[in-house]
Amino acid sequence: MESKLNLTMLTDFYELTMANGYFETGLAEDIAYFDMFFRKVPDGGGFAIMAGLEQTIDYLKNLKFTEEDIEYLRSKNMFCEEFLEYLRNFEFKCDVWAVPEGTPIFPHEPIVTVRGPVMQAQFIETMVLLTINHQSLIATKANRIVRAAKGRPVMEFGTRRAHGGDAAVFGARAAYIGGCAGTACAIADRDYGIKALGTMAHSWVQMFPDEYTAFKKYAEIYPQNCTLLVDTYNVLKSGVPAAIKVFKEMKPESMGIRIDSGDVTYLTKKARKMLDDAGLTDCKIVVSNSLDEYIIRDVILEGACIDSFGVGERMITAKSEPVFGGVYKLAALETNGELIPKIKISENVEKITNPGFKGLFRLYDKTTGKARGDVITVAGETIPEQDEYVIFDPNAVWKKTRVTNYTVRNLQVPIFKGGKCVYQSPSIEEIREYCKEQIDTLWDETLRFENPQTYYVDLSQKLWDMKHRLLEEYAEK
Amino acid sequence: MESKLNLTMLTDFYELTMANGYFETGLAEDIAYFDMFFRKVPDGGGFAIMAGLEQTIDYLKNLKFTEEDIEYLRSKNMFCEEFLEYLRNFEFKCDVWAVPEGTPIFPHEPIVTVRGPVMQAQFIETMVLLTINHQSLIATKANRIVRAAKGRPVMEFGTRRAHGGDAAVFGARAAYIGGCAGTACAIADRDYGIKALGTMAHSWVQMFPDEYTAFKKYAEIYPQNCTLLVDTYNVLKSGVPAAIKVFKEMKPESMGIRIDSGDVTYLTKKARKMLDDAGLTDCKIVVSNSLDEYIIRDVILEGACIDSFGVGERMITAKSEPVFGGVYKLAALETNGELIPKIKISENVEKITNPGFKGLFRLYDKTTGKARGDVITVAGETIPEQDEYVIFDPNAVWKKTRVTNYTVRNLQVPIFKGGKCVYQSPSIEEIREYCKEQIDTLWDETLRFENPQTYYVDLSQKLWDMKHRLLEEYAEK
Repeated sequence: MESKLNLTMLTDFYELTMANGYFETGLAEDIAYFDMFFRKVPDGGGFAIMAGLEQTIDYLKNLKFTEEDIEYLRSKNMFCEEFLEYLRNFEFKCDVWAVPEGTPIFPHEPIVTVRGPVMQAQFIETMVLLTINHQSLIATKANRIVRAAKGRPVMEFGTRRAHGGDAAVFGARAAYIGGCAGTACAIADRDYGIKALGTMAHSWVQMFPDEYTAFKKYAEIYPQNCTLLVDTYNVLKSGVPAAIKVFKEMKPESMGIRIDSGDVTYLTKKARKMLDDAGLTDCKIVVSNSLDEYIIRDVILEGACIDSFGVGERMITAKSEPVFGGVYKLAALETNGELIPKIKISENVEKITNPGFKGLFRLYDKTTGKARGDVITVAGETIPEQDEYVIFDPNAVWKKTRVTNYTVRNLQVPIFKGGKCVYQSPSIEEIREYCKEQIDTLWDETLRFENPQTYYVDLSQKLWDMKHRLLEEYAEK
Repeated sequence: MESKLNLTMLTDFYELTMANGYFETGLAEDIAYFDMFFRKVPDGGGFAIMAGLEQTIDYLKNLKFTEEDIEYLRSKNMFCEEFLEYLRNFEFKCDVWAVPEGTPIFPHEPIVTVRGPVMQAQFIETMVLLTINHQSLIATKANRIVRAAKGRPVMEFGTRRAHGGDAAVFGARAAYIGGCAGTACAIADRDYGIKALGTMAHSWVQMFPDEYTAFKKYAEIYPQNCTLLVDTYNVLKSGVPAAIKVFKEMKPESMGIRIDSGDVTYLTKKARKMLDDAGLTDCKIVVSNSLDEYIIRDVILEGACIDSFGVGERMITAKSEPVFGGVYKLAALETNGELIPKIKISENVEKITNPGFKGLFRLYDKTTGKARGDVITVAGETIPEQDEYVIFDPNAVWKKTRVTNYTVRNLQVPIFKGGKCVYQSPSIEEIREYCKEQIDTLWDETLRFENPQTYYVDLSQKLWDMKHRLLEEYAEK
């Protein structure tokens, strides 16, 4: 959808004042490096899932300033005409590297790196953050919910509670990457191939004299996917009996009941027994009603008889923690051909950035396939697949781990080279499948919903030395 | 923005299966009435603010099914050709009434009412909910934050943490309705006239050899709005001293410093003193860093010296409660010219709907101008402006209040008549001003952040009688 629109001006205004400022101070073409990274996994989880890259690419491909944009900027009486002329002829020239969608990602890792004229590399900050923060948030939340469901399909049902149309559509996309089986959102199906399903609201049932008639009419029209909403009046006294009657009379190809209110554990156990007693063991039970990973985990533990879940508002808004705090920070500058690493100091040690142009690698155990840890390096460094590699905790350097029998994977891939896109996004099915495979490489201890084991994200010796040299220099000032 | 796109298919798939179902069962043209209402004010507040109507109108004006939509639907092998032909020639025919944007609204009130062929009136459910839920959520949250700031301007800074582009743009719009002074989002300024401002990120400061140089360059270019970000290295040791030096040398027209980290109360008090001692009493102090209404209230109570606030992620996502739970329920049917009220029963008394085609009125005290309470009536009923009107709690009918000396206002206004828009949305400035005026009609007890006094939303005797007749009928079944 975004590719149909000029969203260039969907940006924080300060990107424009800074861009004009770099232009007027003669810094505009200086080459800068920026990293996007995040500091904390939402919900206290052990990892997040990268998502939103395809839409970021769409945005960057379509970056141009229309006459309307120029006129708007001129009306602000803040921007010089030469700058506006530059924008009129704007051509994106940056290099971009990023971690592919569906990859488990961890705090402080450079998930996007941008190199280019500072004016451009700075300008794209807002939309890079907006797009990847949003979809990574939803993919991460959806994956928690999907894992709680223990193999039962989870449908994304949140359109009406999403924060606007994009949140609905791209939220559905991100939820699919995170493992959802489909969505209720038709446009996400039409435009992104995310299978949409949906049967009836309570109003359908209310439109007919009784539930039996409402269900029968539905079964006549939709025998191939006949899921009946049984809680308009009374689930066990009227809804399920009427559904059973219709299923036995009409014998639809696919039978299901949906329960959208009440005590899910109690109702599904009773309904299951009624259906089974009627010989309808094939009939599925779908549940939907303010669900999240905790409620799903609990009702499954309690023995609720549920075949699939519809999850709405708590997934599409990531209700328990609706902010993915990705930031975009200056990492280095090229001055007279020399690469000058930049560090952002903070009182809060966690907020000090990793300086320089960097690389990001994941080490997998050759035997089990499990991820052993990630290493952030200085760009150009490689991690040899040799006998042993020592990783260490960057905040407690005496904590060392000797990794042996491993393979190394470069997590960042080139996306743009000199402003030209060099990356073909995989299909949504491929991304979803890849995500699942990659999550399977994480240890159960990292997958825990609460108090997960912290996954190793270490710095190479060279990067650690550089960072500490800069910190020492700062302290001596 | 939405008006440029065909968003007809931004809908829950079940709206389509139901629409086709009504078509195939011959019910499609039956006249139905639906209400949108919500059950609970977010954050335990005393009221919400209506927002999103203008975008809902845009959506309804642009409702049409393209060949692409028809092809997509045909590919699902679920819809009959006659239905697809109907969609090809779709013409919106409904009547719509709604409460104007910026109005304080309360649980159970019909904030939107739709009358029309059931197929159409049902179909628009998803987008009516999506649009009004989202903007009402953000307007309500923004208003809490604005009220906490006690007259100090609050800027909306959340674009990068919004749930996609629409959430950023329409969130900025809703935040403005809720009382924000402006936004950081440039496209919201260009397209919706919400004043955008923005100065610099930490990276601007890092691009120069030191803060003094960075600030001086900025002051040269932007003397008319020179707000300097002083926390890149150390607020009190380097940032504020460098800003003071630049202000004294350059004498910009408008001076400000922004602090984006650290202990806001401590830092602003110290910074204020340093600025004042330097004779820069005109220099404003702006604060931004994960703020919300509670933090703002606290730092003001602590005597922090703050002139304005920038509020990002906690406003644009309504972080403390990111779901506005508006629902859309069948209220009545016309059968052979007769109006048949419909009720949705629930075990949970709070979830039982108010049946029938209804009206909504607010009573204001003639002397103080304060709102005394709202009354939901049967449509066509009027509330005479006479000596006395008795309102009663619908859940505790012995709790009666005699209202005297009052004026009555019909809160619902006609938006569409027979599918034609008959409403001209006010300007965003007018909506914002109206919102402020209307909030001034609420008692302080209703404005409280926690444990507000419950505002009266009562039913007319006629509506109460109708509802209880239907409940009795249901109980006797």
